[in-house]
Amino acid sequence: MKRTSFETMNCSVAQCLEVVGEWWSLLILRDVFMGVRRFDDLQARLGISRNVLTQRLRHLVDSGVLERVPYQQNPPRYEYRLTEKGIDLWHVVTAMRQWGDKWAAPDGPPVEIAHKECGHRADIVSTCSECGEPVSARDVRAVTGPGAVAGSPLPVR
Amino acid sequence: MKRTSFETMNCSVAQCLEVVGEWWSLLILRDVFMGVRRFDDLQARLGISRNVLTQRLRHLVDSGVLERVPYQQNPPRYEYRLTEKGIDLWHVVTAMRQWGDKWAAPDGPPVEIAHKECGHRADIVSTCSECGEPVSARDVRAVTGPGAVAGSPLPVR
Repeated sequence: MKRTSFETMNCSVAQCLEVVGEWWSLLILRDVFMGVRRFDDLQARLGISRNVLTQRLRHLVDSGVLERVPYQQNPPRYEYRLTEKGIDLWHVVTAMRQWGDKWAAPDGPPVEIAHKECGHRADIVSTCSECGEPVSARDVRAVTGPGAVAGSPLPVR
Repeated sequence: MKRTSFETMNCSVAQCLEVVGEWWSLLILRDVFMGVRRFDDLQARLGISRNVLTQRLRHLVDSGVLERVPYQQNPPRYEYRLTEKGIDLWHVVTAMRQWGDKWAAPDGPPVEIAHKECGHRADIVSTCSECGEPVSARDVRAVTGPGAVAGSPLPVR
């Protein structure tokens, strides 16, 4: 089934989903963030079909979030590394992980993160770039931005 | 096509994707966050088929992130409201929006957020809960958490 593309939507959420919104893609990226970089390792860890994994990796490479880099010449073997554009998706994976930890991990988080600089196990707190205070949904309102055009999905209140 | 369920994976990212990972679900939530709450309004704004919208809304209600609330008695009409569990998904939608703003919005962000308390248009900055410093992927390492079990997808380095 060919699904609707979000590519032409003038919405940054849709643009992100166009890159990572396919089933499996964010779990592949989760594993790459955790140090799994090779096709066979990803395939074994995820229990995904080789065919689907090939498709997803190709799309992630074509979208510029992973790059395919040779790690061995003879025979040629490749691994997948995050680009800067890919590394920035850490915030998406992290937001999902923390949501799952809060709402769907009754025995506690399976994975946590340690902040290298301060040395502590830490949660990520969303804060305001202007005043530094913690921010959640009720603390903000969506407003029309400079990139809005006719037909952009904008706030209605 | 029946797709693989992530429900039994002991991974919080997978648990989040099980709730919101279907194509369209996060765009539906984006619109609910922007104040669109009624079926016909969602359908018109998203240009989605009524059948798919019905399925996605049902799954979001069954998962406890939206609730279906009557807003009119005669004839009965319902709207969809975010629960606390749903409101927490704002961090996921926001992380996606900011990634799209940075990497896929050459004319600038279509939508921005204003922080009500300080009054400024703001970005969300991910910070460490322990030391308060800004954090991104390179500043952390993933570590095994208390909820890990045999077979959990854990960090490999």
